[in-house]
Order: sequence, then structure tokens, then C-alpha cells
Amino acid sequence: MILYDYPKSGNGYKIRLLLSHLQIPYKYTSVDILEGATRTAEFLLKNPNGQIPVLELDDGTFLPESNAVLYYLAQGSEYWPTTKIEQAQVLQWMFFEQYSHEPNIATARFWVSIAGMKDSAFDRELLAQKQQKGNQALSVMESHLRNRNYFAGNAYSIADIALYAYTHVAEEGGFELSSYPTVTQWLERVRTQPGHVTINQLK
Amino acid sequence: MILYDYPKSGNGYKIRLLLSHLQIPYKYTSVDILEGATRTAEFLLKNPNGQIPVLELDDGTFLPESNAVLYYLAQGSEYWPTTKIEQAQVLQWMFFEQYSHEPNIATARFWVSIAGMKDSAFDRELLAQKQQKGNQALSVMESHLRNRNYFAGNAYSIADIALYAYTHVAEEGGFELSSYPTVTQWLERVRTQPGHVTINQLK
Repeated sequence: MILYDYPKSGNGYKIRLLLSHLQIPYKYTSVDILEGATRTAEFLLKNPNGQIPVLELDDGTFLPESNAVLYYLAQGSEYWPTTKIEQAQVLQWMFFEQYSHEPNIATARFWVSIAGMKDSAFDRELLAQKQQKGNQALSVMESHLRNRNYFAGNAYSIADIALYAYTHVAEEGGFELSSYPTVTQWLERVRTQPGHVTINQLK
Repeated sequence: MILYDYPKSGNGYKIRLLLSHLQIPYKYTSVDILEGATRTAEFLLKNPNGQIPVLELDDGTFLPESNAVLYYLAQGSEYWPTTKIEQAQVLQWMFFEQYSHEPNIATARFWVSIAGMKDSAFDRELLAQKQQKGNQALSVMESHLRNRNYFAGNAYSIADIALYAYTHVAEEGGFELSSYPTVTQWLERVRTQPGHVTINQLK
């Protein structure tokens, strides 16, 4: 398999982390999103939506959307629960991640610490809005984790992997994780899973 | 089962549509999002993220996130494919819907046709940005559907249901569906599925 990815991407890191847990070997191809490399005609054949990560399977199929890739890879493993309700709850938190968490926390991080941002009143207000909504998402996680160790199914799953990716680097987007002590404990619980790799450990 | 929902919600409509296809009876409870009814202490016990729709299962479990609910209900039915790669592709388009489509098309519709918006330079620029990104999402759909009838697995699935919900009312957000002829044909294909109900057909 080949992972098309940008090294600092949390969405790509989700897949790298699961591949490491599963001990699946793969080839890594870095795509420079800052230079528009996801908008070339060649890349758009891999993902018409022009985003990394994309996983190329052994038969040449290109699979975009990080959380769909996690689903694909986790089937039959301990990272995907066996009951229908627990599976739906894992997906519930993965949709929460893509709708309420990533667009706020990852985008703030991208502007503050990776790409920079325009010095316009609009962009400053949009960043403030994203930081406020990102804090709301962190509060929802904090309250959910108060009486459980993992997001769904009483076990570490791809829901935790999806949410860990941008939560553990949220401070790069101006968020204060010390305000979320239960989330901070959960981060440590994820970090100590067998086969864990950091966001900087590339192939 | 009880569906907590707002009648004009496309996210709620996804679930109503699938329940109709599956001929599953349910109780409907309308929640007035414009009056803050998703932010009460009572509602936050159903979904700490303060959003409709939420499906209450017969055992009292509350399941939020419309696309996770679709997954739950579709298991074992014709609306969920049987191979791992087709399942991942259905989820790929459902994550596309929640990340690239709904935040732009549904939010523009909400401001333009449902809740109104503040007359501020920031909100006007944000609406223009959402309309531009919404048109990008419609273009991705248009190109994907050029050589297939449905989004994934060569069959009508919960990926089509998820994308239909806000696409068919996109004109209420200022989008011109006549610019997307292939999408328009697909809308008609969805509309003629057995058991189809409209967004206005409530229980």
C-alpha cells in the first residue's frame, strides 16, 4: 500500500498510527499541500476532492477520507468493536471529529503554526470563531471521558485514534490542554498503547 | 424508537428517509433549534454536543450524528454493501458529506432560507466563502457521477441518502442545481426509489 500524505497532517497521522498498531508495512509518499500539490491533474485522479491523505491499495484503488481509511484498515482487528451499537458509537465520534473538532482545531493549528494566515479582520474573526468552537468540542470530549477511559465500546478504537490526531497538537492552534484534565489523561492512555508512534515518526 | 429532530433539518431527513425505506415505525419528537431547545440540560443528556437529530433506541440508548444513525439502521439491509472496500467507499462519501458538503451547503441554506443572518461584513464574506466551497463540493459530485449511477458500490446506499438530504434543497442556499446536470439526474434517481418520502413528509 502507498500512503499519499503531508508529514504534519493529523489526518494522515491517524492512518500512520493505525498502520503501526497493525504492523502493516506501507510506502510513504509526501505531498506538499503548501505548494498546491493536491490540486494537480495527477493528484485529482487519486482524490477528486483534492485532499490528502489518500491510501492506494494493492489493487490500485485510491481511498480518500482519513476516517474511511481507518474503517477499512481496522476491519477484523481489535480497533473495531463487534456489536452494531458499539460500531455506530465509534462512527458517531468519528463524525463528531470531522464536523465539530477537526474544522476548528486542525484549521486553527494550520493557520497559527503551519501555513500562516492573512492579516485581515475577516481571518482574525474566523480564527477566533474556530477557537471558540474548538473549545466547545474539547469540552464535549472532557465531559464524555469523565466516566470512561475510551470514546466508545469500552476499548481503544479508531474513534480514539481519529480524535487523538489533532487533540494532542491542539496547543499549536492556541488551545490550552491544561484546561481539560480528563482529556489530558486520555491522551496519555493513547500514547501508551502498544505500537504507538508520534506524529513526527515518518516511514 | 424515537427520533428527536427539527422538521426542516436535512440531517434529520436522512434518518426519516432511511426509516421509510426500511418500513421501520418510529415516534417523532420535534425540537425547536431556533428557540435553543438543543441547549437545555434535558437535551444535552441525549446529545452532549447539543445537536439534532438523535435517535433513541428501544433500550433507551441515545445515538447522535445522523450518519452514524444511518450506519446503525442500514446494517443487514440493501442500503449497506457487503464488501469491505465498498463499505469504506460508502463511508468515504459520508465523511465527504459532513466535511466538505454539509458545512457549506446546509449552513448557507440555514442562513438564507431558515434562520436569517446578521447583516455584518463578516457574515456576508463567510456566506460567500461557504457558497464557493459548496459549489466545489457539487463539482466533485458532478464529476464522480459522470460514469456511475450511485456514489458507491454500484447501488443506492446510505451514501446517496446522506448526500441527497442537503443537495436536493441546495437552491434554498443560493446554489444553482441546473449547473450540475449529472447531479440533477441522480437526484431524480434517488427520488424514484421505493419508499421515498420528501423532506416535508413528517410522521
